[in-house]
Amino acid sequence: MTSAYNFNAGPAGLPESVLQQAKAELLDWQNLGASLMEISHRSSEFMAMARETEQDLRELLNIPDNYKILFLQGGGRSQFSMVPLNLLRGKTTADYLDTGMWSSMALKEAMRYTHVNIVASSADQQYRTIPKPSTWYKNPDAAYFHYVDNETVNGNECPTPPNITDVPLVCDMSSNLLSRVIDIKKFGLIYAAAQKNIGISGVTIVIVREDLLGDALPITPMMFNYTLHANAHSLLNTSPTFAWYITGLVLKWLKEQGGVQSIEKINAQKAKKLYGYLDNSSLYENHIEPTYRSRMNVVFKLKDENLNASFLVEAKAAGLIGLKGHQFIGGMRASLYNAVSAQAVDALIAFMREFERKA
Amino acid sequence: MTSAYNFNAGPAGLPESVLQQAKAELLDWQNLGASLMEISHRSSEFMAMARETEQDLRELLNIPDNYKILFLQGGGRSQFSMVPLNLLRGKTTADYLDTGMWSSMALKEAMRYTHVNIVASSADQQYRTIPKPSTWYKNPDAAYFHYVDNETVNGNECPTPPNITDVPLVCDMSSNLLSRVIDIKKFGLIYAAAQKNIGISGVTIVIVREDLLGDALPITPMMFNYTLHANAHSLLNTSPTFAWYITGLVLKWLKEQGGVQSIEKINAQKAKKLYGYLDNSSLYENHIEPTYRSRMNVVFKLKDENLNASFLVEAKAAGLIGLKGHQFIGGMRASLYNAVSAQAVDALIAFMREFERKA
Repeated sequence: MTSAYNFNAGPAGLPESVLQQAKAELLDWQNLGASLMEISHRSSEFMAMARETEQDLRELLNIPDNYKILFLQGGGRSQFSMVPLNLLRGKTTADYLDTGMWSSMALKEAMRYTHVNIVASSADQQYRTIPKPSTWYKNPDAAYFHYVDNETVNGNECPTPPNITDVPLVCDMSSNLLSRVIDIKKFGLIYAAAQKNIGISGVTIVIVREDLLGDALPITPMMFNYTLHANAHSLLNTSPTFAWYITGLVLKWLKEQGGVQSIEKINAQKAKKLYGYLDNSSLYENHIEPTYRSRMNVVFKLKDENLNASFLVEAKAAGLIGLKGHQFIGGMRASLYNAVSAQAVDALIAFMREFERKA
Repeated sequence: MTSAYNFNAGPAGLPESVLQQAKAELLDWQNLGASLMEISHRSSEFMAMARETEQDLRELLNIPDNYKILFLQGGGRSQFSMVPLNLLRGKTTADYLDTGMWSSMALKEAMRYTHVNIVASSADQQYRTIPKPSTWYKNPDAAYFHYVDNETVNGNECPTPPNITDVPLVCDMSSNLLSRVIDIKKFGLIYAAAQKNIGISGVTIVIVREDLLGDALPITPMMFNYTLHANAHSLLNTSPTFAWYITGLVLKWLKEQGGVQSIEKINAQKAKKLYGYLDNSSLYENHIEPTYRSRMNVVFKLKDENLNASFLVEAKAAGLIGLKGHQFIGGMRASLYNAVSAQAVDALIAFMREFERKA
């Protein structure tokens, strides 16, 4: 995060100290006389940094030894294909919970490789809620149960992971991994594109329980096979080295903040403050059922939509950027990822209050 | 390229001015108050830069309007799958020329999706040559003809592209795209991972003739479908924005150097000088048939292999890095990509001469 307060949904703001360090060593990393961008992914220096980054992630999330951590390319959308290609393991159906735009895209992609059982959907409620477990229609023969923990576009979030014990639980945590404490043991696989809480675009984290590996469909492209990546310690081909390095810096920063437990508290306070302000405003509104409101992506509308353009122009002039809502939803969105400070949220609320007063 | 002379095979050295500019604007790009890494790939600022980069590449390589340029993730290995998944177009066989390690990996991956006809192979000559066209066994029913223009590991390069007119010519130019003038019209598709002559790891360029699009196999993962990327102007999902930006800077630098025609001359001189020295040395040797010697990757051995370790240690001490050969081949390799200056080659030869004198 630099001079502007950055509420982008992703790629999103980074801690300023991360950017400062990247800048300081951009032309000469570890006294090699070269940039990190200019050295081999198989050099001892890069590999040491890569392993340390993996170890930091393992510590921060308390990831057990029987889980592999992969650093891949291709973003969450590649995972939409990789999950069914790798995890069907002889089965012919998979459970998907539909809670927003990303859930919906994931299940549509999975349909190309398997029968998809839509456990429940809140599409007809415009994804303003998450269906209650008592309404779910699960299939006991499912290869896995897939859901999206935080829906970046729609602005909802599961308060706790679903309690799925009979089949592997697979989760897209692209927008909230590392934002709160989770119990990895409850999951078979978690994936997350880095460009929200973990670094920059171009690298995707996969955390997968070892016993789920080794049974990809024969049609799986080499680069979409988790097992090959796991066996190669994520160095199957040339890694996105700079993106991996930025993730390393972000994880060091998060450790300095006291880790996931500490940031979770700050994130809860930030979200509570902004939702509290919205609920008491006569200009702004949020329609997500309170239990399921995202702590990461606060979606809101101006009751007078004619004011949208001036809201964004004046916000930018006030040093507040990235507030425009997703093209599919419209309105506004303030993303409050780990690197967004409490001070930034205060500045946003102060601006919104002043804008409301003048409106 | 910074204080050391960098002969890495990839990720490889970058022009110093590129690194300096990236450093200068790392925390505040285009006065946005944020780093380029922190803004949306769908922001007007990023998209303008992205389009300009595409246009610069089109100019530098004189790419006709009926070719799409794609900026993808996943490296050359993803292309090994994407080519057959997208280009079979109802056919059931494809021609592959086997000239080195990368050719061999590409054809093995293709075998999972189609019958592969190996047109010719120089494997039994340890890839020290490229089979003559008169010996090729082409299949008239092939969906396409695939070859690797420069074999980074083995150190051979096609002096000119094969003359294939009956089926689309598909080429891996990961290690020599932009290093010399090519006639794009001779090709159906060209792909190149960026981390040699085009930028940093994490972005892959695909140049594809439009009429070849639109017929991917039904099993093709969404992110492996060229047509979807083409329709979305390479913004199907979150792009590797920083890697794309570095490519933009490298292309501006190349234009400042006088473009591909100018750099081609410099590249030819650099390679000629180093091979000339090797051929007159009693310590070093290169075994590639002279016609097919790579201008990009000069593979050589020390006749006394006991000297390998001290060669590398002393080279590093002299500020020459990245000279270790690929693990599959051993020996040494000096990669002479666009960003490696004539001065760097002179420094390498001076060092090698002194090392030989002492040996």
